[in-house]
Amino acid sequence: MVGILHCQRLQIMLLVTCIFIALTTVPAAAIVRHYIWKVSYQYKSLDCYKKLAIAINGLTPGPTISAVQGDTIVVDVINNLSMENVAIHWHGIRQRGTPWSDGAEGVTQCAIMPGETYRYTYVVDRAGTYMYHSHYGMQKEAGLYGMINVSLPLGVSEPFNYDFDRGIILSDWYHHTSYEQATGLSSIPFEWIGEPQVNYATVYFDLQHFREYMVNITSFLHCILYVICQSLLINGRGNYNCSGLAPSVCNSTNPQCSPSTLTVISGKTYRLRLASLTSLSSLSFQIEDHEMTVVEADGHYVEPFVTKNLYIYSGETYSVLVTADQDPSRNYWTSINVVARKPETPNGLAIFNYYPNHFHEFPPTNPPPGPLWNDTQSQMNQSVTTKARQGFIVTPPQKSDRVIVLLNTQNKINGYVRWSLNNVSHSLPSTPYLIALRENMTDVFDPTPPPEDYDSENYDIYSVSNNTNANSSTSIYRLQFNSIVDIVLQNANTMTANCSEAHPWHLHGHDFWVLGYGEGKFNLSRDIEKYNLVDPIMKNSVPLHPYGWTALRFQADNPGVWLFHCHIEAHLFLGMLVVFESGVEKVGIIPKSNYGCGKTKSLIK
Amino acid sequence: MVGILHCQRLQIMLLVTCIFIALTTVPAAAIVRHYIWKVSYQYKSLDCYKKLAIAINGLTPGPTISAVQGDTIVVDVINNLSMENVAIHWHGIRQRGTPWSDGAEGVTQCAIMPGETYRYTYVVDRAGTYMYHSHYGMQKEAGLYGMINVSLPLGVSEPFNYDFDRGIILSDWYHHTSYEQATGLSSIPFEWIGEPQVNYATVYFDLQHFREYMVNITSFLHCILYVICQSLLINGRGNYNCSGLAPSVCNSTNPQCSPSTLTVISGKTYRLRLASLTSLSSLSFQIEDHEMTVVEADGHYVEPFVTKNLYIYSGETYSVLVTADQDPSRNYWTSINVVARKPETPNGLAIFNYYPNHFHEFPPTNPPPGPLWNDTQSQMNQSVTTKARQGFIVTPPQKSDRVIVLLNTQNKINGYVRWSLNNVSHSLPSTPYLIALRENMTDVFDPTPPPEDYDSENYDIYSVSNNTNANSSTSIYRLQFNSIVDIVLQNANTMTANCSEAHPWHLHGHDFWVLGYGEGKFNLSRDIEKYNLVDPIMKNSVPLHPYGWTALRFQADNPGVWLFHCHIEAHLFLGMLVVFESGVEKVGIIPKSNYGCGKTKSLIK
Repeated sequence: MVGILHCQRLQIMLLVTCIFIALTTVPAAAIVRHYIWKVSYQYKSLDCYKKLAIAINGLTPGPTISAVQGDTIVVDVINNLSMENVAIHWHGIRQRGTPWSDGAEGVTQCAIMPGETYRYTYVVDRAGTYMYHSHYGMQKEAGLYGMINVSLPLGVSEPFNYDFDRGIILSDWYHHTSYEQATGLSSIPFEWIGEPQVNYATVYFDLQHFREYMVNITSFLHCILYVICQSLLINGRGNYNCSGLAPSVCNSTNPQCSPSTLTVISGKTYRLRLASLTSLSSLSFQIEDHEMTVVEADGHYVEPFVTKNLYIYSGETYSVLVTADQDPSRNYWTSINVVARKPETPNGLAIFNYYPNHFHEFPPTNPPPGPLWNDTQSQMNQSVTTKARQGFIVTPPQKSDRVIVLLNTQNKINGYVRWSLNNVSHSLPSTPYLIALRENMTDVFDPTPPPEDYDSENYDIYSVSNNTNANSSTSIYRLQFNSIVDIVLQNANTMTANCSEAHPWHLHGHDFWVLGYGEGKFNLSRDIEKYNLVDPIMKNSVPLHPYGWTALRFQADNPGVWLFHCHIEAHLFLGMLVVFESGVEKVGIIPKSNYGCGKTKSLIK
Repeated sequence: MVGILHCQRLQIMLLVTCIFIALTTVPAAAIVRHYIWKVSYQYKSLDCYKKLAIAINGLTPGPTISAVQGDTIVVDVINNLSMENVAIHWHGIRQRGTPWSDGAEGVTQCAIMPGETYRYTYVVDRAGTYMYHSHYGMQKEAGLYGMINVSLPLGVSEPFNYDFDRGIILSDWYHHTSYEQATGLSSIPFEWIGEPQVNYATVYFDLQHFREYMVNITSFLHCILYVICQSLLINGRGNYNCSGLAPSVCNSTNPQCSPSTLTVISGKTYRLRLASLTSLSSLSFQIEDHEMTVVEADGHYVEPFVTKNLYIYSGETYSVLVTADQDPSRNYWTSINVVARKPETPNGLAIFNYYPNHFHEFPPTNPPPGPLWNDTQSQMNQSVTTKARQGFIVTPPQKSDRVIVLLNTQNKINGYVRWSLNNVSHSLPSTPYLIALRENMTDVFDPTPPPEDYDSENYDIYSVSNNTNANSSTSIYRLQFNSIVDIVLQNANTMTANCSEAHPWHLHGHDFWVLGYGEGKFNLSRDIEKYNLVDPIMKNSVPLHPYGWTALRFQADNPGVWLFHCHIEAHLFLGMLVVFESGVEKVGIIPKSNYGCGKTKSLIK
């Protein structure tokens, strides 16, 4: 068992931390911050419907980690989930020097078993807005996620001004369990549990109608997805329609699901740190009658731009500045709505509360509906508009050493629906890659390199994917250490006619430059000319728009093994991931607590 | 990863086994029987209500293992449970020489993680009726169980005659998940999900009424328990009242929940092998208008006795002989009903089908209701009547070396409801005892011996348990190898007035002689005189009746670490277990596949 505190120094630091947090939310100096997190299932009514959620120290979403650039974060995760393992990924933290703390089960560590305590230790080496969440099976969907806010060291200022700093977690919420969803995804036929505003007990019945509807849809460019959440949550609060359900199951007056409130003082400017932890939904965020200035994305300063709504995809973070400059005698709605698929889920709502109005006083107006779900051009425009802030540009290497094109398709393997890259659907081995490579285990994964491209000349990205027999593989991309790698994500039609889904891609261990977005099929000779090599934003998560392409560049300068994957929980579960190895021989000694599963048992003396 | 078949010899044996099983259900010679079991969640409608169940190769209950005395059983368990671990106990198999194959998570092995394959290897050294089931968290409740039928070698006959041999698995079934139940049991206040014949969506509402009812009950000697299953199943089939539920959720015409059928030929005699895999319920089993002759219990021959109904407790097996001697022009009901607590669950039903009547033709009569639930005297009578068969008596040692008295009480620890023995509620460490002891790990469990007795002089077993602060401990009983140990189980009142619950106790690794049962408080000087030292039955599972005592004797002659526990899933989960170690220094080399959890990671080189 991992000791709670190793030494007196740590104890003193913890004490200092506690006192400090109690006094202020703006942390001060680079220290060790030690958290002890008990992870358990608890009954929650996040959207008024009572169901099991995963809680950290009783909280769903989990507690926010507030730290200062340079701090060392120590999190002792105690697994009290009865029969279920756990692993937590620190999304956006590059884990330089601590690749074993990345929390990606199957890649960097064995899952933490019930009754065990695992210690994550890492440095938050860059100010910005990040997040954490489960990286195991479909566990994130059960509510295991939270925010990481890293401030600049004392004496260093942001290049923009604000009076207060507030975190907002956006997520979607399901009434079925992650086991039910995983079983449905792994079934023939593909089965989905849960519809919005439908009594849980009648959901299968409605599924029949829904399937027929699916077959009949004819809209071009978009489609209705099979995955629809019950509710959208803002800071863990939503509002499900409880009609027809017993109050003990679903009670709209339950204080747990009263709307989240952001209280503001007229005339003040607020930095809102937004993090999307959705399992599926792409969102638009807006505050009624208020404009937002976008200033940060994934820990990087954005050349400011003003907008009425912010598109935010799963895995992305943004900071926006909002000034409380409207009539202070009333409250305003904050809303999120689903975009990039036809919404069947009502908007998520919170209250933008002008002090001293009552923080639960509903605004006198209708909530803003948000932009049209299928206005892909606006979504693309925001992507293209998001550039590095002048004075903070990290100029990208002007050339790359290697180009990997990844065709995103839905496929079938032995009749099971899967997601594939260049016709390969990834399956994680039961022995983590990082350990397998460091221990020179030769039989853990397929050593054949995965494909670097697809048959782009002959592939019609607008046609229904006819490669119904994809391959499943454990193979990984080995990148030369320090080399410059381009990734071109190419979207295409799914197995449903006239359907291409947005995919938010996330890279572990690195940030990448976002060199460009485009519609249609990427053409290397033509489109490379359009790359933004002057002031591209760096990010760790980026959308791939329907029928479009997104081009990224990164330097493989972080020794370790790193996931790159679609951040939609169901897509990741169905194989929409690749694995990059680089400089693994430079990785230090992996803690033995990462071991214990698969072939790592063969190392027991 | 464990290879599927190691050598050609095994392949041939597997082929032989398959052909043989295809030809006949009576196995022939001692061989290696190799099974490959994929364990996964699947949607099932066992009682017409569709929900997730754990299946082995698609089956819930799992496949029956049919073997011959002396056979070696090899089971490769492949965990496809997504995020949940697994461990399987071979209940009644003593595992002589293979204590690491007992399947008791936390005691003999680390749980098998998702994606992993674990091989159980053991010899079935004694003919009889046994079972297997999950021994991890509350996983058994999800349907992970099945039967093991071991036949005598060719040329050896049973001391009774029958024409056909049939297996019948009895169980209870819940519509909530094992996570929901575990969370409720671990909550303050104690929370229970699920009532019979209540729409799942309204169950919390009804819980309020139920709690009030609980407070008001005044019946002496018995009480209504908080744990009530939705349905009773016979061979995995039950019938929930689907009224008010959508047909896609609950459909009474679903073939999965049509009654189980036992087809018989008039005049023939059937050996029915009964195994109770209930999570909670004590049952009575009866066949309308037919008498049964009890001939076997837990793998030991019983001095035959005739009865109209058989009481069977969770963890017990029996063989009864039934002759099809009634009017063959119709079918008859087989029924099971809950005893030892007030039944809120309808009887489980199956059809005793006289060939050539249609096997789905309902009998023209009402099903037999079974005996009164609170006829404790009849239940006790059957216990006392069950003795070793003449000619097959294993005479017990006439004296014991040690007497351990275990007071069974419900208690609270820090406000949480627990079950305790002598005021100690057991908690399993995250490192299995067997490994910890073999590897000389000194800090895995509390080395203080647990108490051997309670303050029997001053303890009133009829009063509400007032020791509301029990201790939680990992301590174990170390038994001298080959010593003779007596266990006296002493029942008492729970924390509810006038309530004492029946507890079915099960011992791993050994059979015990059942020396006696009594009512009230056991008195060593008086009651020891009543011990049956002449022809006691040997068993591995035995009931402790409400407000009564049960006395057992066994020889600690099997090197290993062994659980002894209440077989009610919720009671085991809440600490109603003790652990016996004996001769652990004689245990051979534990397979490395048992390692991987807790402190076993410190052994990784």
